[in-house]
Amino acid sequence: MKRGLLAIVAHPDDETFGCGGTLAAHASHAPVDVLCLSCSPSERREELYSAAEALGIEEPTVFDDLHVESGVRLIRRVSDVIVEKNPRVVVTHLPFDYHREHRAAYEAVKEAVEWAAHTTTYDKPCLVERLLLMEVNTLIPQPHVLVDVTESMDVKMEAVERYTSQLEKFPWGYYQNINLKKAELRGVQAGCLYAEAYLEESVPSHGPFYETKATRSLL
Amino acid sequence: MKRGLLAIVAHPDDETFGCGGTLAAHASHAPVDVLCLSCSPSERREELYSAAEALGIEEPTVFDDLHVESGVRLIRRVSDVIVEKNPRVVVTHLPFDYHREHRAAYEAVKEAVEWAAHTTTYDKPCLVERLLLMEVNTLIPQPHVLVDVTESMDVKMEAVERYTSQLEKFPWGYYQNINLKKAELRGVQAGCLYAEAYLEESVPSHGPFYETKATRSLL
Amino acid sequence: MKRGLLAIVAHPDDETFGCGGTLAAHASHAPVDVLCLSCSPSERREELYSAAEALGIEEPTVFDDLHVESGVRLIRRVSDVIVEKNPRVVVTHLPFDYHREHRAAYEAVKEAVEWAAHTTTYDKPCLVERLLLMEVNTLIPQPHVLVDVTESMDVKMEAVERYTSQLEKFPWGYYQNINLKKAELRGVQAGCLYAEAYLEESVPSHGPFYETKATRSLL
Amino acid sequence: MKRGLLAIVAHPDDETFGCGGTLAAHASHAPVDVLCLSCSPSERREELYSAAEALGIEEPTVFDDLHVESGVRLIRRVSDVIVEKNPRVVVTHLPFDYHREHRAAYEAVKEAVEWAAHTTTYDKPCLVERLLLMEVNTLIPQPHVLVDVTESMDVKMEAVERYTSQLEKFPWGYYQNINLKKAELRGVQAGCLYAEAYLEESVPSHGPFYETKATRSLL
Amino acid sequence: MKRGLLAIVAHPDDETFGCGGTLAAHASHAPVDVLCLSCSPSERREELYSAAEALGIEEPTVFDDLHVESGVRLIRRVSDVIVEKNPRVVVTHLPFDYHREHRAAYEAVKEAVEWAAHTTTYDKPCLVERLLLMEVNTLIPQPHVLVDVTESMDVKMEAVERYTSQLEKFPWGYYQNINLKKAELRGVQAGCLYAEAYLEESVPSHGPFYETKATRSLL
Amino acid sequence: MKRGLLAIVAHPDDETFGCGGTLAAHASHAPVDVLCLSCSPSERREELYSAAEALGIEEPTVFDDLHVESGVRLIRRVSDVIVEKNPRVVVTHLPFDYHREHRAAYEAVKEAVEWAAHTTTYDKPCLVERLLLMEVNTLIPQPHVLVDVTESMDVKMEAVERYTSQLEKFPWGYYQNINLKKAELRGVQAGCLYAEAYLEESVPSHGPFYETKATRSLL
Repeated sequence: MKRGLLAIVAHPDDETFGCGGTLAAHASHAPVDVLCLSCSPSERREELYSAAEALGIEEPTVFDDLHVESGVRLIRRVSDVIVEKNPRVVVTHLPFDYHREHRAAYEAVKEAVEWAAHTTTYDKPCLVERLLLMEVNTLIPQPHVLVDVTESMDVKMEAVERYTSQLEKFPWGYYQNINLKKAELRGVQAGCLYAEAYLEESVPSHGPFYETKATRSLL
Repeated sequence: MKRGLLAIVAHPDDETFGCGGTLAAHASHAPVDVLCLSCSPSERREELYSAAEALGIEEPTVFDDLHVESGVRLIRRVSDVIVEKNPRVVVTHLPFDYHREHRAAYEAVKEAVEWAAHTTTYDKPCLVERLLLMEVNTLIPQPHVLVDVTESMDVKMEAVERYTSQLEKFPWGYYQNINLKKAELRGVQAGCLYAEAYLEESVPSHGPFYETKATRSLL
Repeated sequence: MKRGLLAIVAHPDDETFGCGGTLAAHASHAPVDVLCLSCSPSERREELYSAAEALGIEEPTVFDDLHVESGVRLIRRVSDVIVEKNPRVVVTHLPFDYHREHRAAYEAVKEAVEWAAHTTTYDKPCLVERLLLMEVNTLIPQPHVLVDVTESMDVKMEAVERYTSQLEKFPWGYYQNINLKKAELRGVQAGCLYAEAYLEESVPSHGPFYETKATRSLL
Repeated sequence: MKRGLLAIVAHPDDETFGCGGTLAAHASHAPVDVLCLSCSPSERREELYSAAEALGIEEPTVFDDLHVESGVRLIRRVSDVIVEKNPRVVVTHLPFDYHREHRAAYEAVKEAVEWAAHTTTYDKPCLVERLLLMEVNTLIPQPHVLVDVTESMDVKMEAVERYTSQLEKFPWGYYQNINLKKAELRGVQAGCLYAEAYLEESVPSHGPFYETKATRSLL
Repeated sequence: MKRGLLAIVAHPDDETFGCGGTLAAHASHAPVDVLCLSCSPSERREELYSAAEALGIEEPTVFDDLHVESGVRLIRRVSDVIVEKNPRVVVTHLPFDYHREHRAAYEAVKEAVEWAAHTTTYDKPCLVERLLLMEVNTLIPQPHVLVDVTESMDVKMEAVERYTSQLEKFPWGYYQNINLKKAELRGVQAGCLYAEAYLEESVPSHGPFYETKATRSLL
Repeated sequence: MKRGLLAIVAHPDDETFGCGGTLAAHASHAPVDVLCLSCSPSERREELYSAAEALGIEEPTVFDDLHVESGVRLIRRVSDVIVEKNPRVVVTHLPFDYHREHRAAYEAVKEAVEWAAHTTTYDKPCLVERLLLMEVNTLIPQPHVLVDVTESMDVKMEAVERYTSQLEKFPWGYYQNINLKKAELRGVQAGCLYAEAYLEESVPSHGPFYETKATRSLL
């Protein structure tokens, strides 16, 4: 089966604000999954489902935790989902995000990606090939990857609108505007109308604990 | 034309000790080039040519500098060679190598890879896709990539022998032995007889100053 | 005499792209100076003068160096200018800017701010009160300070237009667009139409080598 | 109402040893509060109250925790106190303090300062203007701020004496002497008899989640 | 009584794979102890006892925790063991080990070494003189210390064999081979047949909270 | 011949202010040497000779450079002096000293200590056993080593007085007072009247390029 994308985020709305255009753009030709590590208050679960529907992706997996705290239990639950979904690409938060729970999500995901690949942990381990880090409110100084989301931008903005509980905190439209302007700025850098930016972090691709231990060619 | 590998090293012998097996393994099916940033004393140039011959690769490019000091002039000369050779993969030293000139080589190469991609600097810029960092005397704690060099290991050891001026500093065979044991250790990790280990460092793959500004797919 | 702003930048255009709106906004009520640490090719000097005129500030001081390399001589020349201009606020580049010469400018300015304050170096030393770091092409992940430049934005865009030698490298308007979109994005965060973003770096405000050795109140 | 100082410390005595002279010096003209994040054994609470009385400040707020461990619950309790006291200046521990619980206090305070400013968290948020880091047993290599405490030094030494449970651990007078000599050393640097030293850490002063989103002037 | 070595490790087998040759080599002339911070599943306890027997050292101390998480309780239990065993040398994991629980062990040990020395914490405190960090699966880039284990290598390999539950995860002999090749590689660097490598981390040797407050000679 | 101490400092007076008490305390029973990496203006050379005389140590070696800039030439000159003096202990500046040339001295000394030990560089290499870092104006947060200088403190203060060109910059006695108060503060921590504080940095003690390749005992 074709391997796709898995976005692992701290809270409902992070998947839309951070990489919604990218998720929607891939949905037509590859599996696109979302794992959300916390959900508080519980109404946000419905908003997340609604946003996922707008993006055209599967119903997200949601952990009911009130907060994201990295630790052995969370890491194992995350690696279980990675193994189940078997993505080629994992998207998550920045390690220098201003939000403490976004940084905790990064830490847990980084570990989970390692353990998901171990043949000693899983019968059918998952070796993630690319780990990409997205921008929500904290910007990436110099991105490695720019994804052209011109064609899915209207879908992303529609998904933003589903987060009514968040939008109403800023009645002058902060969340709508910041998502629009971020995409326009990255679009200027990317030579298109709208784009989303990512850092890419190298992950081990071979090793004793993985199924794929070595390569014969770097090309 | 097919794009290949370019190893950029501080001194003659670094290309053989650090990535000689990998260079030889690729030589049959892709362009493999070496740029050596210094040469002192001048006899080492002949040893380098001889080692390259043993590895089955082209005659290396050699800068006559006595020492490697990073700076605007070196960076520009390196980026000129990158643009000329147009490699997909660049291999160089570790930023935490114990040898000061190896670290200087890393710094210059890192900058040169950036500038070689700029459309404002070169008419035909070169966007390097992978930057790999090798181990000479300083080991990599946890490698990202292990290259199976079982079939080229005898060629590597033959190239090691060409560095008579270096080998005679340790008449009990230090350089031969360390290269053999490093490859055996990495081989155990890689599930083969002999391997070479690398860190991979993400390089920007899209951006305003590059020819390729964005991507439509992460897969 | 009232103490104002001094922007210390690596190349002509950095002062406009990075903090042009801020410079123009302060020009009416405080001294605003620019020191440019290099100028190559020499035509860019005229563009810099022209941009300064558009911003409504004094003719910048320009060093004729071809490149910015931090070192004892540059640091001393910079601290001499700081002492001469006696600013309360210095603006310069980010230490993590992708451009090597921007980072070199930061290093030199950071040192020069220290030495400019020493009573053992200058008869009339200058104690800079605020050191602010601006964004040119590299973005600030989480800014400390947002300056509302709504009223000076047209003047900034006019100054951008003076850099014809740079603009013509990107005929589709990259530099104009990136400056506009950056200001719009920061404007959304700042609750206004256009803004410029800065990091603030604490500088020693008292000490044995300064004129002001201690304070009696933190309020 | 005038906004003052809030010292947030790990254990009873840290407020006196680290910034007691500063607290006493401000007590006559501004609100001065102390929040102590742990109290074990419980007798130390009385010593803290007694020291506060000697310093001439209000009765401190004390959390009954046995140890300081940063986490979502502690951060929220700290930000609640910040919002209640509404200080302009917060003083806390160094992030490189040798004491693990002092570092934990720094982490929690740094986060709490951020969240206390959010309009989405508090109806009447508190934007702290200065975050200062003090020295208890770990010294600051190069301070940003030196506060002249010559006039309050006798009061500080009186407050030190109230910590009998701590002083009796070192009957030769370690705690009295180290506090005296630290103040004398900083006094030499500050050009006065006694001083206390601080690092200053920049905190965001504008942004989308704060009441004050932008500034018009840096002067 | 003569003071010896204490190895503090995360899991059964770390003491053998990381420093088994060193432990065995010292066992004839000094006390050699092992503290293992977790044990899961419980069968591994018997393997650890068996390996210790093979190495010729005392029965290890084992904590029954399922995982290693650094925190105040673990630190205190570790410092209690340090004080009880009173070693001159402590060996533990690397702070940059790929294994999260190895890093947690390092953090707890680093703290415990500090607190074990305090006269205010223990009646008979223990001032550890050397803190050495070993390599299990993560290699040390440039070791500070190489211990010749030629004479105890067969004993180490015998102890490796006792970990049948681990060895059977890699029936082609990964753990046996990696331990052999690591020792051979370090042996080449150390001028002997087999060696084990360590980083050394400076620990405070004098201070107000220690019994030994100062030295009169650095020689 | 007994191996002693070598202090390598950036400017005349650093050896007295940073470690003068330690140098004087060792002079009676071990070789004590000073290498000063710059001398400007040239009058300071006489002050340095005079201070050395007061400390009771040999005439220092002085490089005539106007500034300290680390680089291959300086490193080689420093390692030549290390090999000539063959010290067991090297004392130099802190890597985080506020003074740029002190940091440059640290960098050059760190490299020189490495190269001085290489059998491939020197016929009679010198393996430095301890590298200690001293405090001049920048303080050490938490020292590793405290040297009791009670008996040599008057000699240190006498040596301070020889730097008339420096003392007269602060006619109220800054340099005398700071040196006195630093020693008193460290004395309180060290349980004596006067002390000097140091960080200790681990240096490789065995390896393939050194004469001593391995050890058999860690005790």
